[in-house]
Amino acid sequence: MKVRIHVSLKPGVLDPQGRAVHHALEGLGYEGVNDVRIGRLVELDVADDTSDAALEAMCEELLANMVIENYRIEKVQP
Amino acid sequence: MKVRIHVSLKPGVLDPQGRAVHHALEGLGYEGVNDVRIGRLVELDVADDTSDAALEAMCEELLANMVIENYRIEKVQP
Repeated sequence: MKVRIHVSLKPGVLDPQGRAVHHALEGLGYEGVNDVRIGRLVELDVADDTSDAALEAMCEELLANMVIENYRIEKVQP
Repeated sequence: MKVRIHVSLKPGVLDPQGRAVHHALEGLGYEGVNDVRIGRLVELDVADDTSDAALEAMCEELLANMVIENYRIEKVQP
């Protein structure tokens, strides 16, 4: 089973990487960009019988820093 | 308009970060994980009249390294 975990910074947490990309896009001449935030995309290939609870535990223990990040679990249909 | 850009390594490109996370998940006792790959998630807030061509140009010029990475553009419904 393929699972995508979207990890993004919580609102209000400063994102220097996003600011750098925003600045670079403006420098390259792209207009109309209001905000850029950078997160992580973790693509897991797990056994079909992996429970939702196990996936949430992986996120909270290792994949996301729950103090500053949110995660969203998306199961990819085969 | 909110746009999510999913940037992931092309198949066959070595992913040391993914291997490290895979190893860590096994070390923490999670079973049934076959593969882990790590990508980036770029969340853009752009003007509503931004064209698809402009978004693709941003990806190919700055957001993704087209030699080793693929990207996918997802428009988020408000």
